[in-house]
Amino acid sequence: MQFNNHLEDIQTYEAGKPIELVVREFGIEPKDIVKLASNENPYGCSQKVKDAVGQLVSNMSLYPDDSMHKLKQALGERFDISEENLIIGSGSDQVIEFLIHAKAHSNSKILINNVTFAMYEIYAKHVGAQIVRTSTQHHHLEEFYQSYLEHKPEIIFLCTPNNPTGDALDKQEVYDFIQKIDQNTLVVVDGAYMEYAGYKDKNKHIEPKELTERFKNVIYLGTFSKAYGLGGMRVGYGIADTKIIKQLYKLRPPFNITTLSLEAATIALGDREFVKSSIADNFTQMKRYKEFAKEQKIDIIESYTNFVTLILNDDQNSTEISNLLLRKGMIVRDLSSYSMNAIRVTVGTKEQNSRFFDLASDIL
Amino acid sequence: MQFNNHLEDIQTYEAGKPIELVVREFGIEPKDIVKLASNENPYGCSQKVKDAVGQLVSNMSLYPDDSMHKLKQALGERFDISEENLIIGSGSDQVIEFLIHAKAHSNSKILINNVTFAMYEIYAKHVGAQIVRTSTQHHHLEEFYQSYLEHKPEIIFLCTPNNPTGDALDKQEVYDFIQKIDQNTLVVVDGAYMEYAGYKDKNKHIEPKELTERFKNVIYLGTFSKAYGLGGMRVGYGIADTKIIKQLYKLRPPFNITTLSLEAATIALGDREFVKSSIADNFTQMKRYKEFAKEQKIDIIESYTNFVTLILNDDQNSTEISNLLLRKGMIVRDLSSYSMNAIRVTVGTKEQNSRFFDLASDIL
Repeated sequence: MQFNNHLEDIQTYEAGKPIELVVREFGIEPKDIVKLASNENPYGCSQKVKDAVGQLVSNMSLYPDDSMHKLKQALGERFDISEENLIIGSGSDQVIEFLIHAKAHSNSKILINNVTFAMYEIYAKHVGAQIVRTSTQHHHLEEFYQSYLEHKPEIIFLCTPNNPTGDALDKQEVYDFIQKIDQNTLVVVDGAYMEYAGYKDKNKHIEPKELTERFKNVIYLGTFSKAYGLGGMRVGYGIADTKIIKQLYKLRPPFNITTLSLEAATIALGDREFVKSSIADNFTQMKRYKEFAKEQKIDIIESYTNFVTLILNDDQNSTEISNLLLRKGMIVRDLSSYSMNAIRVTVGTKEQNSRFFDLASDIL
Repeated sequence: MQFNNHLEDIQTYEAGKPIELVVREFGIEPKDIVKLASNENPYGCSQKVKDAVGQLVSNMSLYPDDSMHKLKQALGERFDISEENLIIGSGSDQVIEFLIHAKAHSNSKILINNVTFAMYEIYAKHVGAQIVRTSTQHHHLEEFYQSYLEHKPEIIFLCTPNNPTGDALDKQEVYDFIQKIDQNTLVVVDGAYMEYAGYKDKNKHIEPKELTERFKNVIYLGTFSKAYGLGGMRVGYGIADTKIIKQLYKLRPPFNITTLSLEAATIALGDREFVKSSIADNFTQMKRYKEFAKEQKIDIIESYTNFVTLILNDDQNSTEISNLLLRKGMIVRDLSSYSMNAIRVTVGTKEQNSRFFDLASDIL
């Protein structure tokens, strides 16, 4: 059977190995496995969310409120924006899917950073669009601008803080860059880890309301998967001018968020204490990774997220090292597929990190 | 800002009104509202599923097992098929989305029944494909065949039992039809309500294994939203030859099913008693709708599902009647958007149905 040609170029996204897979492949007991591969919140999610969702299991048979009224109202209050400026996706991934399908096609170019979130390229391939990459590991906005002038992309992705490197742009340089972009080019500011960046350095913080009121050709992306600790529930959002949101809405499948996910996200927004303490603990623990890197004489990228990227030395191989860690029950992310000899490690709880340091110092 | 042209033709899907909306719009107390609009299982879901999910709320922070191993294994056993013949979607809707994006494009035609599930057309528009409809309310496979010869569609959808009419095709006529279709045309057999049809009439039952082993150009769709009572959890599946599944997999976003949904569906498959008793109760209650239609001198379509379609008389207006019911807290589906002067009513519990008969006999 013949399928659309551009499918030939699509490779499937390789997710971080779930604990279940390591149990199956290596016969390690679940209790002996630590997963620091997917930047989940190691402190779980708010107890208030767990209590509420536990009470709502009878609602599993009912289709979700497709207007998502409660969650939109809560997000609207949180960001001081109108519900018409919001679209909710099954993870912010799905908002990326909507915007690429809405704006790009087989003759389009999409401009992204050399090393960045893998889904931009995957969704670009879904529509047969061409990906244009900058040349450097970190976002270099002058190069972005030159590439914009040369290629005239339909969409530009800025991922700040960036995944999988953890560095972040200053708000001011983002604004200065967007100022120079024409109104018909969609600029995406992917702030999946913004809660962490804003806590560490106010200059990195980008507020969706200010951003999208100032620039009508920008969409801001956020997620409940990281600081809010709901990676398993698949809820993300886009904030933009109503003209953009309206178009994306046309591509939203009905009931794209589960009944329990809507409740979980709504309640999670109300427990800011949980988020604050997760983030504070994250940066306390992150200091230990800096010390570890120093001891091991390896580089670490200054991180504004809940993960660290350890740049290995030439005599160390990231694939080998992550495989050795895996056999000991420690799951981290090998970045060789990003052409980096590096591993990305989620900053875990105190105990999880100690375990990582123990295992990694034996192996490195 | 310019968006892709074909977005202009896309209308947003209108979901059945959720209870929350009726509460907001009409100020009716939730306890006084009965929703018989979305063909949810009125008996909820298995108690085993509720117990298990209630215990698993701590897993909300963890990304789902993207290999979906446990659910695929359970489905594989249920249908006696290999995991390579399976793809899981966020509702069977999402599998429809995958297959249209994989096979159709802006020059394609997609053949569907005159009155059928609305999402086929909506996803077709996402890729700019042209929808070709037959002329009759019920699937008339000889007309389908003539239209196939004339239009050479990329994809043919057979929805059996059909939504929103409730009637079903015989297995034999489906097989005889597919036999005549060339190998490069994808035939979709959407069996969202198949559990109900198979219980009522063995001749209507289509077994995915037999179907897809016999015909390599066919995909069978099933869902957990109806008989399994998990409408809120968004889990459906496609079963087909590995060559088809492999292509669809390329378009599957990672983590398209939530952690709790994977668990819920897996456990739901194990509780066949719940499903059986829901279906038995459904058909017991359905008899009351036949009697009601007779009393009211309105037509009812013979249904192989968990809903009934009541065809109103010329002096009755389906939009008016469903609005009057709505103001009394009774939510049903007006089929005027399908060019039918009819309402679709989910067969509810004994009490819910009694309430419908009371209210409807006042209004009709």
